[in-house]
Amino acid sequence: MSYPDLVEQLISQFSQFPGVGRRSAERMVFWLLQKPRENALQLAEGIMKLKDRLRFCKICQNLTENDNCRLCTDPHRDQKILCVVEDHKHLLAIERTGTFKGLYHVLLGAISPSEGRGPQDLLLDKLTQRIKEKGILEVVIATDPDTEGEMTAIHISNVLKAIGVKVSRIGLGIPVGSSVEYADLSTLTMSLASRREI
Amino acid sequence: MSYPDLVEQLISQFSQFPGVGRRSAERMVFWLLQKPRENALQLAEGIMKLKDRLRFCKICQNLTENDNCRLCTDPHRDQKILCVVEDHKHLLAIERTGTFKGLYHVLLGAISPSEGRGPQDLLLDKLTQRIKEKGILEVVIATDPDTEGEMTAIHISNVLKAIGVKVSRIGLGIPVGSSVEYADLSTLTMSLASRREI
Repeated sequence: MSYPDLVEQLISQFSQFPGVGRRSAERMVFWLLQKPRENALQLAEGIMKLKDRLRFCKICQNLTENDNCRLCTDPHRDQKILCVVEDHKHLLAIERTGTFKGLYHVLLGAISPSEGRGPQDLLLDKLTQRIKEKGILEVVIATDPDTEGEMTAIHISNVLKAIGVKVSRIGLGIPVGSSVEYADLSTLTMSLASRREI
Repeated sequence: MSYPDLVEQLISQFSQFPGVGRRSAERMVFWLLQKPRENALQLAEGIMKLKDRLRFCKICQNLTENDNCRLCTDPHRDQKILCVVEDHKHLLAIERTGTFKGLYHVLLGAISPSEGRGPQDLLLDKLTQRIKEKGILEVVIATDPDTEGEMTAIHISNVLKAIGVKVSRIGLGIPVGSSVEYADLSTLTMSLASRREI
C-alpha cells in the first residue's frame, strides 16, 4: 500500500525542486492538505502567473514583466558600462550596494563541466553584439570567485578582449571586517595578487 | 530594488512550507522560471487536484478520494481492533509490515504544548463514539515514543479505559538488529519495563 495517487504525484513533483528530497516533499504535501483551499489556490495561481507574465529582458536577461527591464529602460543609468553576473540574485546583490550605475548582462549560469554546461552555453554572441552596437566602453565581470565562476570569467574576458573592449574583474580578497589571520590560503593568495597602490 | 512582485509573492508563498526558508524558496522560484511552462502547469494542477479531490475519511481520517477510505470499506479487515496513529505516514509504515489486519484511527497530530496543541485538539469524541457504536474490542496506541507521543498515548489511554475498552501500546525497546551495548538510556529503561515472559 502507498499514498493515494494524487498524493504520490504531487510528492514526485515537489521532489523535482532543487534541494527538496522525498521527505521534504511529503511534508509539503501534508502541509497543503491541512491548509484551507484558499492557500492552495493562491499558490497554484502564483506559479502560473510567474510563468505567464514574467520573462527575461530581451537586452540583458534580467527578470521583467515587459520586453525590457526597468534597468535597461532607465535613462539615468550609465549606458557605457556593463556588469556581467551569473544570475538574478547576484544582480540584486550588486544593486543593493547602490554604487554601480551602469547596466547588466545576466548569464543565467556559469560554465560548469559537472553540470554539462560549456562555454558555448553562455550565449556570448548576444553580449558581444550588444557591446559593439551600443559602444560599451567597459565590462566588469562579477562572476563568483569559485572554480566555475573563475573559468567563466577567464573565457568571457578572452572573448571580449578579442573585440577590443576594456574588461575588468571585481576585486577578490579578504572581506571587509575580517582578519588576515583567519583568511584561507586561496583568498590570501588572491588578495596579494590583487593588491593596489595607495 | 528587489525582485519583481510576482517573484517576491511566490517566494513568500513557498517560504510558508514547513522546512522551507527564504533561500530555498528563492531557488525553487528560479528553478520554475527556467523550466518549460508545462512543468509549472502540472504542478499548479497537481496542487488543486489534491485540494479538490482528496479528503479525510469520515470514519478514520485516512486520506481518500471518496467519503470513506479503502481500509474502512474493506470487509476482509478485522472490524473489532483499531490502531491509533499520529498521521498518515505512520499508518502507511504500519500497513507496510503487513501484520496488522484491523482498522485505523488517524489523530492528525499529537498533543504538543510547544505548538499549542492540547488534549482537546485530538477530537477524541469521534473515536470514543466509534468504539461504542462498532463494538471495538481493542485499541492499539501507536503514537511515537517521544515526549509528545507519550503524552498523547497516556491521555488517550485514560479516556478509553473510562469507556471500558481494552487498550494496548506498541512495544517500545531495542530495535531488532541493534545491540544492548549501543541502546540509549531511555530506550534501555523502556526495554526493561516492557519485558515479557518467554
